[in-house]
Amino acid sequence: MSEVQTYLDAHFAEALEDLKAFCRIPSVSTDPAYAEGIAAAANFVAQRLKRAGFASVDLLDTGGHPAVYGEIVSNPKLPTVLVYGHYDVQPPDPLKKWTTPPFDPDERDGRLYARGVSDDKGPLLIPILVAEAYLKTTGRLPVNLKVLIEGEEETGSPHFEATLQKYQALLACDLVISADGAMWRPDRPSMTVASRGLAALEVAVSGGSKDLHSGRHGGSAPNAIGALASLLASLHGADGRVAVDGFLDGTTPPDPTIISAIEAADFDAEAYYREIGSPKPDPITDGRALLIRQWLEPTLEFNGISGGYQGSGSKTVIPSSASAKITCRLVAGQKPDHIVAVVRRHLEARLPAGFALDVHRHGPGSEAFFVNPDLPALKVAEGVLAELLGRHPLRVAMGATIPIGTAFRKQLERETIFFSFSTSDEDYHAPNEFFRLGNFRTGLTAWALLLQRLAA
Amino acid sequence: MSEVQTYLDAHFAEALEDLKAFCRIPSVSTDPAYAEGIAAAANFVAQRLKRAGFASVDLLDTGGHPAVYGEIVSNPKLPTVLVYGHYDVQPPDPLKKWTTPPFDPDERDGRLYARGVSDDKGPLLIPILVAEAYLKTTGRLPVNLKVLIEGEEETGSPHFEATLQKYQALLACDLVISADGAMWRPDRPSMTVASRGLAALEVAVSGGSKDLHSGRHGGSAPNAIGALASLLASLHGADGRVAVDGFLDGTTPPDPTIISAIEAADFDAEAYYREIGSPKPDPITDGRALLIRQWLEPTLEFNGISGGYQGSGSKTVIPSSASAKITCRLVAGQKPDHIVAVVRRHLEARLPAGFALDVHRHGPGSEAFFVNPDLPALKVAEGVLAELLGRHPLRVAMGATIPIGTAFRKQLERETIFFSFSTSDEDYHAPNEFFRLGNFRTGLTAWALLLQRLAA
Repeated sequence: MSEVQTYLDAHFAEALEDLKAFCRIPSVSTDPAYAEGIAAAANFVAQRLKRAGFASVDLLDTGGHPAVYGEIVSNPKLPTVLVYGHYDVQPPDPLKKWTTPPFDPDERDGRLYARGVSDDKGPLLIPILVAEAYLKTTGRLPVNLKVLIEGEEETGSPHFEATLQKYQALLACDLVISADGAMWRPDRPSMTVASRGLAALEVAVSGGSKDLHSGRHGGSAPNAIGALASLLASLHGADGRVAVDGFLDGTTPPDPTIISAIEAADFDAEAYYREIGSPKPDPITDGRALLIRQWLEPTLEFNGISGGYQGSGSKTVIPSSASAKITCRLVAGQKPDHIVAVVRRHLEARLPAGFALDVHRHGPGSEAFFVNPDLPALKVAEGVLAELLGRHPLRVAMGATIPIGTAFRKQLERETIFFSFSTSDEDYHAPNEFFRLGNFRTGLTAWALLLQRLAA
Repeated sequence: MSEVQTYLDAHFAEALEDLKAFCRIPSVSTDPAYAEGIAAAANFVAQRLKRAGFASVDLLDTGGHPAVYGEIVSNPKLPTVLVYGHYDVQPPDPLKKWTTPPFDPDERDGRLYARGVSDDKGPLLIPILVAEAYLKTTGRLPVNLKVLIEGEEETGSPHFEATLQKYQALLACDLVISADGAMWRPDRPSMTVASRGLAALEVAVSGGSKDLHSGRHGGSAPNAIGALASLLASLHGADGRVAVDGFLDGTTPPDPTIISAIEAADFDAEAYYREIGSPKPDPITDGRALLIRQWLEPTLEFNGISGGYQGSGSKTVIPSSASAKITCRLVAGQKPDHIVAVVRRHLEARLPAGFALDVHRHGPGSEAFFVNPDLPALKVAEGVLAELLGRHPLRVAMGATIPIGTAFRKQLERETIFFSFSTSDEDYHAPNEFFRLGNFRTGLTAWALLLQRLAA
């Protein structure tokens, strides 16, 4: 292990250059305009795996963006670990809010700034670099290693489960370790043992068949923005919770270890609102209430809205249509299909006369995920973190969605642990995404140690 | 008169080419990106006036886009008529809904399609062409003629009243005739004797200081789209009327002649909703109710909304801000200042905790306008229309805003009549704006006759 660590230290500058090169590729999966970036990023990962010494590297056909697969399987007696990550990134919008360009990585204050650097390019590069370090020093890995890096995570992994099913034999393993996910806080080690599910939809309202003059037609013609605003406003109650009949159908109570973690966390709600730059809303009373909302309650959030004239100045038009993008985060027991159905029913029942409604779904969505609390690998990973970071990690939930855990359980019948070195404050779906270079280093050491311990 | 008519007929093809050349100029006043188009359109009008034989032509400095002025004042014993029009046009968005490009005029089915052709380039060209016809045939005009063509009508004429004040002496006249405005219906001659006023504003809501990940922060962070939707939804009641305290302050009852016109019009509400392509909303019971809403009641319409991610697919972001554009149409007695104040107060009182609100005003707005029903010139104009179109025109109101009537009354102490040959179904604030070429011809004859009759 010491020679592996020495190798990692000696080659850290190169590792950083690799990461920068990776981040220069604009691999935005949600927008077809970036198709070239997606292809280039898949190719980058494949080439990097080959260079690290992976004997067998392939692009797997998923029906959408390809997944990159590589393996080093040398000893049937060793456990087989499947590493998961994703090479696609969020859109960089709004571009003007970036201090430096999103696809021109900039190192400052011990951080690397770029779209995708924290989610998930930095974290996924770590296990590849660690495998390379083992191969270049000891000549072999402590475990059989399979690596699966997909390109559609940011669009809800629409082809992922079918891909696992299609390549079941190829991907067979004893354990999945996700390099995606995030440490909860920069100042406190944590293992993420639960994540919320996701259902994404788009709601479009249309009134007249064309835009109309707001003078001639004002007062008589249907205003699509007005109808959309009323519909959206009806989706939450005064307490900020979702006010859709049937939304909570099937929910199961949360894992008590997470409640204990919330108690232990002593989360500072005031500091949170200072950090995000807004006053505390009324329904949140303290840090405990806040974490329960973030981790253990479902949401319905508006991600985008558009309709009518959006240029400068004013335009006296009654827009014929308006639409909003919505994502719901789901807790254990909620089914994405059902969520879309009850939201649709809610909106249809409230649609005023004079309008047409279209509820369009983005991707299949995913259910919430919980790691089995007794999984031995979970304890091994906690031990590694405790040793390196000097404090036993909290078992935390995450508000965000990692649909892969459920997919691996279903298709490969294996458990997944999340072992990521990004941190959830790294603005990974916002402008100025960054990755802490200290965590990049720590992650390399931790993965090297984890693979060794898992072999035992 | 017959030689003038002969001249107009003989030169109609050239007139049409003039109109097409004028419409090729993208003179959008609301967007600074079109500054060159504005300058080119002002220059086009000035050159066309000179070519028609106007001795004195100038660009008047307004503090904003210039107004074009030309005059032929030859005989102090003749009445002096000031003609009003505007060379600026609405933005062409949404571009993809145009059958042919907005600034590449296309003649089909007896119509000319182009942005601005009906509002107001076609109608304003008519009196210039008529003056030319008089000068080329009889060598003189039946009245002293002044022409004032502004370039900021579509932005609410922010400098117009100050310009009238500044050039009071130059613009002195006996009567104003507006070439802007519109006939109500293609199948029934009408004179517009009232128009609604306007107040335009923009409402922006902000939550956090930056966009946030909807997974990590969903349920705890303020969602600006949600807050904006609630605020907008609170502005109307279930009957579709504005639900803002103080909105109706100061309103005076409508002119009874307009109610009579509404009764006489026997307006078909079902046909109206078929034409605009939407089902009839519940609060409108019949054609009478519809016209009362359009002509005699104030409105608050949403013209545009934007916030968060608007690209394709989904983006799991909680947007930090969202905004909406609003225009209110005002009836007699409502003051734009007061309207903005009461809307602002309404929104401030309902802003949820955790958000900031900015209410920004676009332009000074304008009060509603009514023509003096006993004005002799109004009766002369009605006589011309009755003679040419075979039916006595209805006196109608218009839902749209023509702020100039009030401005002329205040600054020049003169009355304004609206004598326009556009029709209000010509999609002049929507894609595929058109102008009926038959009305272009009729308008030439009608203006020639009107100037002659006004001299008497």
